[in-house]
Amino acid sequence: MNLTTSQHDLIYFDNAATTPVLPEVVQEMIPYLGDHYGNPSSQHSFGFNTSRAMEKARRHVACLIGSSPNKITFTSGGTESNNLAIKGSVTRLSINSDCKNIVLISSIIEHDSVLQPLNSLKAQGYNVKVVEVNREGIVKLESLLEILRKDEVMLVSIMLANNEVGTIQPIRELAKITHENSNALFHCDVVQALGKIPIDVKHLDVDLLSLSSHKIYGPKGVGAIYTRDRTQLSPLIDGGGQENSLRSGTENIYGIVGFGEACRIASAGLTTYCRNIKDLRDYLIEQVLSTIPRCFVNGSVDQRLPNNAHFSFPGVKGEDIIVKLNEYGIAASTGAACSSNKAKPSHVLKAMGLSLPEIEGSLRLTLGHQNTKSEVERVVLVLEETIKELRRHSGFPDN
Amino acid sequence: MNLTTSQHDLIYFDNAATTPVLPEVVQEMIPYLGDHYGNPSSQHSFGFNTSRAMEKARRHVACLIGSSPNKITFTSGGTESNNLAIKGSVTRLSINSDCKNIVLISSIIEHDSVLQPLNSLKAQGYNVKVVEVNREGIVKLESLLEILRKDEVMLVSIMLANNEVGTIQPIRELAKITHENSNALFHCDVVQALGKIPIDVKHLDVDLLSLSSHKIYGPKGVGAIYTRDRTQLSPLIDGGGQENSLRSGTENIYGIVGFGEACRIASAGLTTYCRNIKDLRDYLIEQVLSTIPRCFVNGSVDQRLPNNAHFSFPGVKGEDIIVKLNEYGIAASTGAACSSNKAKPSHVLKAMGLSLPEIEGSLRLTLGHQNTKSEVERVVLVLEETIKELRRHSGFPDN
Repeated sequence: MNLTTSQHDLIYFDNAATTPVLPEVVQEMIPYLGDHYGNPSSQHSFGFNTSRAMEKARRHVACLIGSSPNKITFTSGGTESNNLAIKGSVTRLSINSDCKNIVLISSIIEHDSVLQPLNSLKAQGYNVKVVEVNREGIVKLESLLEILRKDEVMLVSIMLANNEVGTIQPIRELAKITHENSNALFHCDVVQALGKIPIDVKHLDVDLLSLSSHKIYGPKGVGAIYTRDRTQLSPLIDGGGQENSLRSGTENIYGIVGFGEACRIASAGLTTYCRNIKDLRDYLIEQVLSTIPRCFVNGSVDQRLPNNAHFSFPGVKGEDIIVKLNEYGIAASTGAACSSNKAKPSHVLKAMGLSLPEIEGSLRLTLGHQNTKSEVERVVLVLEETIKELRRHSGFPDN
Repeated sequence: MNLTTSQHDLIYFDNAATTPVLPEVVQEMIPYLGDHYGNPSSQHSFGFNTSRAMEKARRHVACLIGSSPNKITFTSGGTESNNLAIKGSVTRLSINSDCKNIVLISSIIEHDSVLQPLNSLKAQGYNVKVVEVNREGIVKLESLLEILRKDEVMLVSIMLANNEVGTIQPIRELAKITHENSNALFHCDVVQALGKIPIDVKHLDVDLLSLSSHKIYGPKGVGAIYTRDRTQLSPLIDGGGQENSLRSGTENIYGIVGFGEACRIASAGLTTYCRNIKDLRDYLIEQVLSTIPRCFVNGSVDQRLPNNAHFSFPGVKGEDIIVKLNEYGIAASTGAACSSNKAKPSHVLKAMGLSLPEIEGSLRLTLGHQNTKSEVERVVLVLEETIKELRRHSGFPDN
């Protein structure tokens, strides 16, 4: 078996970290890097031109989540949207209140862009609580209900699908019990789920929703927030009053146009995409489990993003797998990209009850539009060799 | 004289609102919209690749302002940088203090992205004061000194060059008296000045500096903040810990690469650019003043951005001029782009002591790389006709 890279193209199995930009999306963006450069606030044809393009993009984004366009505010990305949802609603609602009495809830497995804003608020004196998850990474409804019944809750923030293990949460039920038992706003981070499973804000009954472009084959540096009622938010970034004063700053036109086009393509092809990528992912999991001894899949089997595969290989370190795979031209991840250069064990896997060796030996493979069956086969081949070699070094019995 | 548009290309004289992106900049960006799409935090070749590109861009940005690269943090633009400088330093420094005792100073002619964050802080109880300007729009040193001597000041925020009238402030002197008379941080918004006049953070002796890409022929949606000491700021956007935890969120790689290239080009051509554009601007002013009766230039003659011309035409409304010019394919502005769709008179011109008719009749023409002498001549021709016509309608004597 020849595993050298030179004969093969690079293989990208890290689509949860970021995706390539679709050529159709780039084509839509190019004119706005050329002649159409006006500031959308300008009162001349250059400005009218970009302003129109922005509103078209807003309609595409709204369409993908079943919203009306006027409830969509563009931001610089999912992280800003999460910060705006959390800090913006809390600032707005806590005027004249003692923050010690204000309870904010998230799940224990949220992305850092939800957990860290909550940590900042905690440092300011807010009362932040977390709901637990089961072994599959699914939020325990009773854990949320218990807090809602006891405390005056102002905000609940739970993601639709987890970025590490791809587990999909029962958001409709979580939002329902939140609204039945409190006056809290329900915020949902759908960054990982967007374009991979159907999302409808009315069906989910959420108040706030965070979106990102670069996880759905759109450009980086742009995202959006859905607000059921924008008056419930204070802006994070003040200034010239763009985006109905909810997000000031000259708009990232190329990014917004690209994001809109990525949403349009995702809306049109969602069903086919989901089916194809799920088939490929299932094949990947099946091949890994049947080829490599003593490994298992983390997260839910059914309630799972169609493109996510997440394994534990006891006896090896995930970082070592990543380095080896990279030598063979394969891009993968141990978990969240933004945490992948820090040496702390995944808070998600820990919350799901995995042991430290199981956490340390974890590998996330996330598929995209561009991936093929032959790539899956090559990755499995390389992975088999890699795990065997690493286990030989660590003295772990590989059979 | 034939003034119909069809025979002419569109003319863009609104380069203070935003600039076209240089073709060289687009060329640098394109690969990062193609094969080089990795998340810079990823621990594989796709990530290493974009991470390297980002650090190269950081060096170019740093070079343009005489900073070291590790003091540059990328943001989504000038507005975010201003918000981060103001809210971030105040949050950091005011822990355990009563905000009523904390004095924050800006000039009365700052951009809304400085004034509005200060207004938000004022609503939270902070003590916000403004320093006055003279008829040319230059900050009065004694007005600043008076506050510094009386109050415990935490932050002074004064722009290097004004976005409406282009007046350049004596930042070195203002920072000097701030540091001599207080422990306050000095923040400077150089969004309009960058790439038009030389800027050196050490010479200016500032603590914080806000930059934007789309005013210097780079892409929209990206900017940066210079921090003399980053520990003096709290982040506005928390999350995955990018940019040394000062600004979380997956980085806008294409934008950052484009911004870097725009800075590199600006560094290389600053002297020539300044001279050429100043000559063209001086010709424009000379032609307008000699052709159109009863008009005058606002702002300083000497302490002025080389590309800015700002006039008052009493007897007409600036908005009507803009509409007419646009009909002839000429893009111009009454003042700040982000305020140009709101019907409130300019706070800058008001602070400079202009009368309401003088404010209402104002027009900003800002030149760029792409503008030519023949464009200036056409604009003057159209403007002459426009003012004559509008004054005829309003009954204002035009001679």
